[in-house]
Amino acid sequence: MSFTEFPSRLLENAVNEFASLPGVGRKTAFRLVMNLLRRDPEEVRKFGESLIRLHEEIHYCRNCHNISDSEVCSICSDDKRDKSLICVVENIQDVMAIENTRQFRGVYHVLGGIISPINGIGPSDLKIDSLEEKVKAGGITEVIFALSTTMEGDTTNYYLYKRLGKYSIPVTTLARGVAIGDELEYTDEITLGRALNNRNPYQQ
Amino acid sequence: MSFTEFPSRLLENAVNEFASLPGVGRKTAFRLVMNLLRRDPEEVRKFGESLIRLHEEIHYCRNCHNISDSEVCSICSDDKRDKSLICVVENIQDVMAIENTRQFRGVYHVLGGIISPINGIGPSDLKIDSLEEKVKAGGITEVIFALSTTMEGDTTNYYLYKRLGKYSIPVTTLARGVAIGDELEYTDEITLGRALNNRNPYQQ
Repeated sequence: MSFTEFPSRLLENAVNEFASLPGVGRKTAFRLVMNLLRRDPEEVRKFGESLIRLHEEIHYCRNCHNISDSEVCSICSDDKRDKSLICVVENIQDVMAIENTRQFRGVYHVLGGIISPINGIGPSDLKIDSLEEKVKAGGITEVIFALSTTMEGDTTNYYLYKRLGKYSIPVTTLARGVAIGDELEYTDEITLGRALNNRNPYQQ
Repeated sequence: MSFTEFPSRLLENAVNEFASLPGVGRKTAFRLVMNLLRRDPEEVRKFGESLIRLHEEIHYCRNCHNISDSEVCSICSDDKRDKSLICVVENIQDVMAIENTRQFRGVYHVLGGIISPINGIGPSDLKIDSLEEKVKAGGITEVIFALSTTMEGDTTNYYLYKRLGKYSIPVTTLARGVAIGDELEYTDEITLGRALNNRNPYQQ
């Protein structure tokens, strides 16, 4: 079935909106809209409003730039979190990934991207100034770079290090090595080489 | 990444709404919402409104029950369409499929489903009374049953035939046979058997 003609503009609009999402084709979009049409109107109104409110009411934490329902996010306003330990991440997905490990008790700083000349993203597009301000203001004991282990991540790490190095605070990065569950045979040589060089004492 | 905790209720709500759609898991829902978050707020407002308007403003044609932006759909209000020729279909997807063939110049009657005891759908759940009314009122030259060639479709055809038979108007069904492009080797035996029994004179 192709979609040369829709019996309704309203239907067509809704299908077009869904089809604008990444990975959603026109057939899938149509199927999703037909599903919504069969639902309770009140339920669909809530769906629509959740999208409108997403942009109108959402905040970005003024401290760490994480997504939030208020001016300061729940992590930054948590008394139990160590404000002197800052974990620098690319985006909010990374905050959620690290939070899910339940291993980190510090706070975050969300850059909002990484330096990527090929995508036209330079240091000025990222929240780097506010990170430097925090470090400059003092009271920070450690900054952890938790960026992707890609060319862009490495470039960003290097740039950040140049900016923050002069304040002489400890700067660390996530450990790089063989992932848990990986078979050595299929581990790429760079990862394996680094894991060998950074070997740790065996712990029973 | 699992989703034990969202940094924002608004974000969580939007993800939950998307994840309620058929075939959309929580990871996909999250990816779609992140895409919307990166967009222009105005664009996302339009998306949300298109869903709300879908239910609030959409009509079902009072004549054929097809989806429509007005009281009577564009097909029923088209002077060029033959109102005496009614094609009975299950849903609006089927109307669109037949319209796309550009072979049909009559009008439709959308049942809104087919009889399916296993899904608890009986004749009273479908728009069958209004179809009988149309036929009873006279002026109809032919009713075409264009339902799926499934057990449910056959049951519905049989029921409709029983209801409409007494008005002695021609009732037809779509031709059944080997689909264009199908290889005989892979055609199921019921289809092939019927195609053989209903063979047509060869046309050059």
